[in-house]
Amino acid sequence: MSIRIGILGYGNLGRGVECAIRQNSDMQLAAVFTRRAPESVKILTEGVPVCRIDDAAEWKDKIDVMILCGGSATDLPEQTPKFAEMFNVIDSFDTHARIPEHFANVDAAAKKGGRVGIISVGWDPGMFSLNRLYANAILPEGKDYTFWGKGVSQGHSDAIRRVEGVKDAKQYTIPVESALDAVRNGENPELTTREKHTRECFVVLEEGADAAKVEEEIKTMPNYFSDYDTTVHFISEEELKEKHSGIPHGGFVLRSGKTGWEKENSHLIEYRLKLDSNPEFTSSVLVAYARAAFRLASEGVSGCKTVFDIAPAYLSAKSGEELRSSML
Amino acid sequence: MSIRIGILGYGNLGRGVECAIRQNSDMQLAAVFTRRAPESVKILTEGVPVCRIDDAAEWKDKIDVMILCGGSATDLPEQTPKFAEMFNVIDSFDTHARIPEHFANVDAAAKKGGRVGIISVGWDPGMFSLNRLYANAILPEGKDYTFWGKGVSQGHSDAIRRVEGVKDAKQYTIPVESALDAVRNGENPELTTREKHTRECFVVLEEGADAAKVEEEIKTMPNYFSDYDTTVHFISEEELKEKHSGIPHGGFVLRSGKTGWEKENSHLIEYRLKLDSNPEFTSSVLVAYARAAFRLASEGVSGCKTVFDIAPAYLSAKSGEELRSSML
Repeated sequence: MSIRIGILGYGNLGRGVECAIRQNSDMQLAAVFTRRAPESVKILTEGVPVCRIDDAAEWKDKIDVMILCGGSATDLPEQTPKFAEMFNVIDSFDTHARIPEHFANVDAAAKKGGRVGIISVGWDPGMFSLNRLYANAILPEGKDYTFWGKGVSQGHSDAIRRVEGVKDAKQYTIPVESALDAVRNGENPELTTREKHTRECFVVLEEGADAAKVEEEIKTMPNYFSDYDTTVHFISEEELKEKHSGIPHGGFVLRSGKTGWEKENSHLIEYRLKLDSNPEFTSSVLVAYARAAFRLASEGVSGCKTVFDIAPAYLSAKSGEELRSSML
Repeated sequence: MSIRIGILGYGNLGRGVECAIRQNSDMQLAAVFTRRAPESVKILTEGVPVCRIDDAAEWKDKIDVMILCGGSATDLPEQTPKFAEMFNVIDSFDTHARIPEHFANVDAAAKKGGRVGIISVGWDPGMFSLNRLYANAILPEGKDYTFWGKGVSQGHSDAIRRVEGVKDAKQYTIPVESALDAVRNGENPELTTREKHTRECFVVLEEGADAAKVEEEIKTMPNYFSDYDTTVHFISEEELKEKHSGIPHGGFVLRSGKTGWEKENSHLIEYRLKLDSNPEFTSSVLVAYARAAFRLASEGVSGCKTVFDIAPAYLSAKSGEELRSSML
């Protein structure tokens, strides 16, 4: 019997979950839930219903895990606790500072409903967090580094689009190679914001806009750009569409640490992701953790969990025997 | 109250465990057990007893976790099941093909004694295995690659030392950079043994030995060198001692995979270790899993586990709240 998955919210992430389910033969898509008019939403999978979010409760016994694909700003803080009472749920809540509060809310709801809720699943938070934890546990004396990119930052792209005279824009966050190399060489550098990442912007101007003024405004924008070395390229709408319509991302988690009686030996642990599609990779992680949620719930577990609380074997469709003989 | 650790076997690995315990403030070394005459073994930690292995049973209630630091060929297959009946144990059993059998033996013993045994802990098997599992669960359609090095292979160094005319030798396994790059570029190459690693040997000759003959014998040695591009350098005993007395190692686990409805997007997951001291890093992993064994046992769990079965949070001295607020 395959695991019946519901998708709540059908944007880039929801579509990514739909694609990922197709790659996992022990899972099936049961239904997609949307705030839009269901008849206006065309999904990729044949024969699967699109329903109104308000009707989700009717699916309580027909869905094993609901994957919540909304945004962290307003959707998930409300949706995850709400649906954790009736479904096992997974979300990709990524507002780091608000995770403790979100955890508490989801935990209370999931325990009340006897369900499992796994929050903050994806790559950061998610796989990057796991790598920080493992590396810190193994090398207690050391230094952590996280670099992001090369990848598109939606927040920074949006910020540029709000500048007067800008028609469209795409921003790439790029890790500084020499800083990465210094970390890899065990130099334990103290890196400023500016030394870790550069920002590259591709901007389409409105007709008649003042390029110099737009560039100045972007480069001096507080929080977003003023602390970075920023490059601005003005390109045509066609070029933006043709060369910059993807959503690549990725990054590096490194920990450099010492061992030995006199701390005489250095070690480097590096985890790297290079992703053509940020939302599809995040979705793939969500789906693997949906399997874990299903299994934990089958064992009678309830409450809120994070990637830290899930034994790796729960993510795989293979049995313990298979894993030990093929992957250990 | 700190976790009381016993070390069984005091070679490079045992000494590494001793050093690692010093870096973890929630742990203390209780005793070291050796097959040698205890009075002949000098350990680094002040005031800790060195005991005979045969007396270990007397420590049953004074040690929370026994870390077994023997070899995989003959020590661990016998020791781990034996001691799992009276202690929570951790080992670094690394004979991949015999893991299922070892697991079964340790599982039976640990269950009989109501203890936890965690086997095959280290980096390969260990952290590399974990990364293979996570990456496969996230990207079900893809290809795995493991590269080792640059590092010292004890087995290959020993094989060279058995060649007539060789006084001493050190062998480095080196990953082929162009093969690594092809994987990173998503080319999904099919790589032969020769294309993945090269072997570099530093050899000290016996007086009067025939260098050309030794070199030929090394390069054509079946299983060890004949399938690789091998370089042989003849150096003096002093140079070997000065420049090649370390035990560095490391390597790369990569998975390249596809997502998307038509598999249109590529992703790369890469995990890398660069280690000055292979045994000290392995020891550091063992110690982190000792914490997990202690906690699992405190919860009443018993039986054999591997790194696949342990939720990451069990490895850290931090609480769930601390982990969520600082590392997620």
